Amino acid sequence: MSQSARYEHGLAKFLEIYGEQAKRFLASMEEVSPDLKCYVVEFAFGDVHCRPGLSLKEREIATVAALTAMGTAVPQLRAHIHGALNVGCSQQEVVEVILQMALYAGFPAAINGLRAAREVFLERSK
Amino acid sequence: MSQSARYEHGLAKFLEIYGEQAKRFLASMEEVSPDLKCYVVEFAFGDVHCRPGLSLKEREIATVAALTAMGTAVPQLRAHIHGALNVGCSQQEVVEVILQMALYAGFPAAINGLRAAREVFLERSK
Amino acid sequence: MSQSARYEHGLAKFLEIYGEQAKRFLASMEEVSPDLKCYVVEFAFGDVHCRPGLSLKEREIATVAALTAMGTAVPQLRAHIHGALNVGCSQQEVVEVILQMALYAGFPAAINGLRAAREVFLERSK
Amino acid sequence: MSQSARYEHGLAKFLEIYGEQAKRFLASMEEVSPDLKCYVVEFAFGDVHCRPGLSLKEREIATVAALTAMGTAVPQLRAHIHGALNVGCSQQEVVEVILQMALYAGFPAAINGLRAAREVFLERSK
Amino acid sequence: MSQSARYEHGLAKFLEIYGEQAKRFLASMEEVSPDLKCYVVEFAFGDVHCRPGLSLKEREIATVAALTAMGTAVPQLRAHIHGALNVGCSQQEVVEVILQMALYAGFPAAINGLRAAREVFLERSK
Amino acid sequence: MSQSARYEHGLAKFLEIYGEQAKRFLASMEEVSPDLKCYVVEFAFGDVHCRPGLSLKEREIATVAALTAMGTAVPQLRAHIHGALNVGCSQQEVVEVILQMALYAGFPAAINGLRAAREVFLERSK
Repeated sequence: MSQSARYEHGLAKFLEIYGEQAKRFLASMEEVSPDLKCYVVEFAFGDVHCRPGLSLKEREIATVAALTAMGTAVPQLRAHIHGALNVGCSQQEVVEVILQMALYAGFPAAINGLRAAREVFLERSK
Repeated sequence: MSQSARYEHGLAKFLEIYGEQAKRFLASMEEVSPDLKCYVVEFAFGDVHCRPGLSLKEREIATVAALTAMGTAVPQLRAHIHGALNVGCSQQEVVEVILQMALYAGFPAAINGLRAAREVFLERSK
Repeated sequence: MSQSARYEHGLAKFLEIYGEQAKRFLASMEEVSPDLKCYVVEFAFGDVHCRPGLSLKEREIATVAALTAMGTAVPQLRAHIHGALNVGCSQQEVVEVILQMALYAGFPAAINGLRAAREVFLERSK
Repeated sequence: MSQSARYEHGLAKFLEIYGEQAKRFLASMEEVSPDLKCYVVEFAFGDVHCRPGLSLKEREIATVAALTAMGTAVPQLRAHIHGALNVGCSQQEVVEVILQMALYAGFPAAINGLRAAREVFLERSK
Repeated sequence: MSQSARYEHGLAKFLEIYGEQAKRFLASMEEVSPDLKCYVVEFAFGDVHCRPGLSLKEREIATVAALTAMGTAVPQLRAHIHGALNVGCSQQEVVEVILQMALYAGFPAAINGLRAAREVFLERSK
Repeated sequence: MSQSARYEHGLAKFLEIYGEQAKRFLASMEEVSPDLKCYVVEFAFGDVHCRPGLSLKEREIATVAALTAMGTAVPQLRAHIHGALNVGCSQQEVVEVILQMALYAGFPAAINGLRAAREVFLERSK
């Protein structure tokens, strides 16, 4: 696959996950680094998220869990909570994933993750 | 619910997830700390894993993702790869979850997680 | 012990540690997730903080040290600095615990932890 | 204070904490890097551990908590469990500190920390 | 070397790296903890940054990489991006170091690091 | 660029950095996951390490620093210490990078990193 085909492929997946938020997230990454935006679209979405073997919902569950446990990536956690809700997770399912992280990464990780989730839920209810 | 009912409840969930490996994992935790074993059974399995709202398969996907991303809990990652396979994940699904962590926690986390997965797959094929 | 006895037990310990701040901290967790608030009260305070074998002061020293070293839980670090001061640590003792983390988690962890401590000390002096 | 006075000062504190294990730990650091060994003795023990304001027991409680929560420094956790026991912590107190970390850093951190503690207790009982 | 000679030595190195920002950074650390400020100047700059064997530019590349990967020390990352630019790194070199961290610590670490870099670049262009 | 051109490009860079160790490292990744091996070669080496703006020596300094600070990726740290030495770092330069991490990630990270370096130096001296 050529690089531009990978970009198109990744962009389609990005739009499928983020819908109307896609433009905002892409503009935000473009502002930070156009090269990094390309790698995210081509590699993260074109190569990895297009792989068969897991549903998009399962991929977002995995990502929300990991970002909650790591605790160092709140803006990205917020984006992926949007993504999870966009590809079919209910709010309750997102809450369950984050709450479960109390077991593996401790209560502060779960509390901070749930706070991010509440903010996303509120933003989407407007 | 009384404390012993929580323990029974948690133990049943633990057995549902770990099957024949349950005895080995419980004995290993008992050896380390009987109190911690109780908290794991009562709280982690009796309270949290018994919650509705996510399938056991989704719960194990979340846990395998988080432990891979954290990179500090290889014995627990191995146990939860067993758990994921026991509750219905295919080997390919486990590989996909771990591989995706390259995006969020870096290639070393994914490589070390996949090495743990290969070892578990090998152990189960004997 | 029944679940409501564990809650009462944990709530009493929570009030013993946080005094007049308890209401604020509980309301903040309630807002994020009523279930998580219950687990924190029942498990973290009812089960773990009620254990014999360490004084509350020693438990808060351990927690302030850990949260400083982790660096991913500033709101919880602030709460436990309040807790440490409430159960008998002096401001100097809190500073010593955090400063020592420079050795084990690096200077940035200690600097960020001490900044949180200064803010808590200031808030309490009003 | 001159650099050699700091070294002497730190060495005395190191011997106070590690007793007969001191020679082994110093030789192990010397083998890895003589410069780093000097910094550990001068800065970590001569400057920081000689500070007033916390007892050695409280300093070791803080360190055992932090290293358990971080999960990336098992050899150092083992050394500081020895240190904690040498300066007056009981085995039960060490266990309580590590077990409490389940709340702040998750169950795997506590389980792996308690496993290290069991190994140290066994080594000392020989 | 006496303690005051170490301080002078470290202060000279600190000024060499931070130039006109030095006063601001020292005042900020003084406010948080005068003792910690001393340790940073004496140990981090007087002892470690004065060591031969690496250029200051290489030392800042190493630090910017580490702080980006850790993701828990944004104020210190910002300070060291200033430092890197002050000792001869171009903005492009700083961007390359941070972007490369996507491979080892994941995309969120690189994105958050690049956002900090953009803010520093903007501040310096005023 | 087509996907196979990216692979060829990345493989050439991989061979430039790892020389005679390249075959061993590629075989080890192939065994863990052929797909991940492809992503490492194409993305990490073909896309990122081929970027202009930093020398290979500076890229390896950044990577050794980050992996030392993270403390969760010892096999990868060992590989990149080999890489650093292969592209022109002296053993002393590698030691300086790792030792400096004591400031940002704590003494245990530096000690464990230096232990890995000693093992690599020994292996190469045979």
